[in-house]
Amino acid sequence: MYTPEYLEDFSRKVFEKMGCSPADAKAATKVFIAAELTGLPSHGMTRIKDYFQLWQAGRINVTPNIRIVHESPSTAVVDGDNAIGMIAATKSMEIAIEKAKTAGTGWVSTKGSNHYGLASYYTLMAIEHDMIGISMTIANPLVAPTWSVTPMLGTNPIAVAVPAKSYPPFSADLATTAIARGKLAMMAKKGEKVSLGNVQDKDGVPSDNPDILKEGGSILPLGGHKGYALSSIVDIFSSVLSGANFGPFCPPSLAYLPVKDEKVGDGTGHFFGAMRVDAFQEKDVFLKQMDLWIETFKGAKPAKGHDRVLIPGEIERETRERILKEGITIIEPIQKEMKNIAEIFGIEFEMGK
Amino acid sequence: MYTPEYLEDFSRKVFEKMGCSPADAKAATKVFIAAELTGLPSHGMTRIKDYFQLWQAGRINVTPNIRIVHESPSTAVVDGDNAIGMIAATKSMEIAIEKAKTAGTGWVSTKGSNHYGLASYYTLMAIEHDMIGISMTIANPLVAPTWSVTPMLGTNPIAVAVPAKSYPPFSADLATTAIARGKLAMMAKKGEKVSLGNVQDKDGVPSDNPDILKEGGSILPLGGHKGYALSSIVDIFSSVLSGANFGPFCPPSLAYLPVKDEKVGDGTGHFFGAMRVDAFQEKDVFLKQMDLWIETFKGAKPAKGHDRVLIPGEIERETRERILKEGITIIEPIQKEMKNIAEIFGIEFEMGK
Repeated sequence: MYTPEYLEDFSRKVFEKMGCSPADAKAATKVFIAAELTGLPSHGMTRIKDYFQLWQAGRINVTPNIRIVHESPSTAVVDGDNAIGMIAATKSMEIAIEKAKTAGTGWVSTKGSNHYGLASYYTLMAIEHDMIGISMTIANPLVAPTWSVTPMLGTNPIAVAVPAKSYPPFSADLATTAIARGKLAMMAKKGEKVSLGNVQDKDGVPSDNPDILKEGGSILPLGGHKGYALSSIVDIFSSVLSGANFGPFCPPSLAYLPVKDEKVGDGTGHFFGAMRVDAFQEKDVFLKQMDLWIETFKGAKPAKGHDRVLIPGEIERETRERILKEGITIIEPIQKEMKNIAEIFGIEFEMGK
Repeated sequence: MYTPEYLEDFSRKVFEKMGCSPADAKAATKVFIAAELTGLPSHGMTRIKDYFQLWQAGRINVTPNIRIVHESPSTAVVDGDNAIGMIAATKSMEIAIEKAKTAGTGWVSTKGSNHYGLASYYTLMAIEHDMIGISMTIANPLVAPTWSVTPMLGTNPIAVAVPAKSYPPFSADLATTAIARGKLAMMAKKGEKVSLGNVQDKDGVPSDNPDILKEGGSILPLGGHKGYALSSIVDIFSSVLSGANFGPFCPPSLAYLPVKDEKVGDGTGHFFGAMRVDAFQEKDVFLKQMDLWIETFKGAKPAKGHDRVLIPGEIERETRERILKEGITIIEPIQKEMKNIAEIFGIEFEMGK
């Protein structure tokens, strides 16, 4: 078991050794720790190795000039200058929040970025300013449009956080696919079948094989053509509005995947929004009404076999509280990755904690 | 078969007889005609009777003072003053577009409104101004949150339209439910079963009975808890931001359903967005890139048994072209509703065209 502080200290040192400024190293690390505490290790410590390898391959800029390249009172396009995704994304969300302070809302479409980690992290930045936060991103293409067999879209998540007065924020973070790639990998390891409607084979025939991606198959969008539309909206807002690579041109976030020959823009794209709640209503009126919303939905009658109805974000918060108490579990293969990087950089990392 | 002009003329006269101004009668009618041409008669001429009955019951304000009650450079809350939904919504989207002209984007949350018809209609208003259009609304509660049996949310659609240069706009309009109520009714009439995952019974047990809503059942959200989160976001943006009735308090849009005793706000809520594409990029650069996006997705390989991959909005446009050529079919029961209103108001309506 590791404490968040221990992992944070380690991660910051790694990013600093790669050449990041202390502020940037801290910003990137905060997203990893948030992912571990949310119970999403796929977006946590294991990504240190991914970014380390991208850096080794010269595919990441650790001293980026992240800047606004186009703007209006409520909007900006940010060029991430090939930064680590979490650094470009944190800066972009800060700009959205600044815009919202004067214009009521702020909307930033970011290009020239890379994998940004946990989508909900950025939405929660807005909460501290009594704003609604919105965050979405493109990702490696694994998902075929309806009636197609070509992987064109990523898991393309949409995250939204809304502040309340007496309760923790409403916080939704959802991939626009029927199933996550990580879940498929887990099912394959256990020898399980995946229920129909989640993946298809290379010809577009429904499949129950969780390993079908390795045979040219693809993940299906959430709920069929509706998920295809949602995922497309994420793609357009993140990558067409900003001028990043859209859809199938999304740059790979892993060093062992080759850089794509064909580009239609700059790097990976994200989209961020911040809406001041008092741009719509008196702050206190809104926050109290959100309390009433939460109480109303908590008051719904549970289905048979359940004892409560959840508000989006509730499970993640409970997980966070549990992990904060128990400590963060890092599985051995990831510990080894971290140890390996520690040795290369001459920093400390204790395995088996 | 009716021409759009014939139905438009009839609908305008009905709204004028109810006391609407000519401009308001025209605005409301345009949404109905758009629904008929999109092949969605459930949001077309049959709604004339619904609004007529609400008006007879004194539940609609035909001379509303629709106005901004709170604003910032990029936002407004609009009070629909209990107007016909299409009139409040058209005015709200116009305000969003005006805001976007100066602030880059415009965001309007509307309260005191009623059923607004076709969500995509308002998004397409933005296209003419080289803006991305966004529209969402709450609706009668039929959908239970995940793990619950209480209908708390409506079909809560999300619509987004994006302009392109040489192609018609990308236009997505999706309910955040697994299945539409109208489709269930159709299946019940045909004696068909509905596949599991679409509806549940009053205890939350999965059901294949399309008539289950009549027995206390509910519709399930799109793709489980993800759809619940999406529907909640629509509810919060439309009705908590504006101060309308949220979730289970959504006022019924049919006169035979009693007015609810408990209110938590004013009328029905909607949410609208307009984003100037040149607030993000040079207009022509963006529009050309959207062309490339459309061409790229059209170029995906079709699945077995299909000969093309669709862009959201394509089917609706083809339907529109066909109906414009063939004429609009109004089924006899709806013709009778129209004839009945025509006689009350002393206006012409020819059945059996």
